[in-house]
Amino acid sequence: MIALPSDRSLVLASGSPRRRELLRSVGLTFAVRAANIDETPVPGESPTNYVRRLSIEKAAASMESLLAGRGDVVIAADTTVEVDGRILEKPVDDDDARRMLRSLSGRSHRVHTGVTVSIADHGARRSTTIVVSTDVVFATLTDQMIDWYVATGEASDKAGAYGIQGAAAAFVERVDGSVTNVIGLPLAETLEILRNVLG
Amino acid sequence: MIALPSDRSLVLASGSPRRRELLRSVGLTFAVRAANIDETPVPGESPTNYVRRLSIEKAAASMESLLAGRGDVVIAADTTVEVDGRILEKPVDDDDARRMLRSLSGRSHRVHTGVTVSIADHGARRSTTIVVSTDVVFATLTDQMIDWYVATGEASDKAGAYGIQGAAAAFVERVDGSVTNVIGLPLAETLEILRNVLG
Repeated sequence: MIALPSDRSLVLASGSPRRRELLRSVGLTFAVRAANIDETPVPGESPTNYVRRLSIEKAAASMESLLAGRGDVVIAADTTVEVDGRILEKPVDDDDARRMLRSLSGRSHRVHTGVTVSIADHGARRSTTIVVSTDVVFATLTDQMIDWYVATGEASDKAGAYGIQGAAAAFVERVDGSVTNVIGLPLAETLEILRNVLG
Repeated sequence: MIALPSDRSLVLASGSPRRRELLRSVGLTFAVRAANIDETPVPGESPTNYVRRLSIEKAAASMESLLAGRGDVVIAADTTVEVDGRILEKPVDDDDARRMLRSLSGRSHRVHTGVTVSIADHGARRSTTIVVSTDVVFATLTDQMIDWYVATGEASDKAGAYGIQGAAAAFVERVDGSVTNVIGLPLAETLEILRNVLG
């Protein structure tokens, strides 16, 4: 669907298996070089500024670790769930996951993903960053549904304690916006940036 | 997430692997008994009436083939894509798939799924039918993107010539409504009916 010039190599600065799967689904081949950065929100930082900043920092950290001037193209992303202006990151344990899911039950929340695409050309670096937001409405969840879901283990490694693919698909009554954004990488928008950057 | 009483057995009246996967993802066990019915639209039939009627006919055909009075619960569904009031069914060949995808490019269309849940009790039969509709906005597709997608083979067995999971995820800019409805079975709504029917 999108062809990389032969002198470019693509790097995904994320360890998320869901982002890998999304990029693979459109026929892209890439290396994975997850960036380890401090993901603590700055006090008072808005959820959109938070994911924007983290995607920029992840792209920069990944780019630093690559050889300059090779023509690498780095895609970095960070996804967070916002409810009542608060940021929900990955749950620290099962109780935290249950608490997060109860806070999402029977209402709307917003999922934000920051995406940064950086390209290195003979030492110079160009970056484009976007933030995509999607509204998600959850069905009313009983404690039994929440316990059942947490027992599947799917909640543990996901911002907001759920993944829209898999068992929590039944929790999601409706989505308004990009679905792949909720999975972790807004695919149409990311390919659009890639096309522009490579253009 | 939802437990069937021990005297009930669940039957999915659909051969769709995507519907099977959705129901399995929420922990349900069920038999598959696809119903073979004539899926030709009645002249002048609206897309919503069409999927409603087909889901009812599929549930009835599947129920007929089961032993009465066993307490079987049948789930049947039919999904169609509507664009400019026209029904897009499964493409008959690759050219048809390309034509359908061109008609969806850069604009909004609507996906309808009719779901019927029927339950047999000692000869009596109760049925509940719903139609769920979701708006989907496609990115502008180039001929190259369409050719690439059709070559993956994913278009061939899907109403409207695309599946929202897989490679066409990049075509879908936004969704307004149930995502599982676009996959082929609106999961939150179907489980809600199941709970009421079994209640």
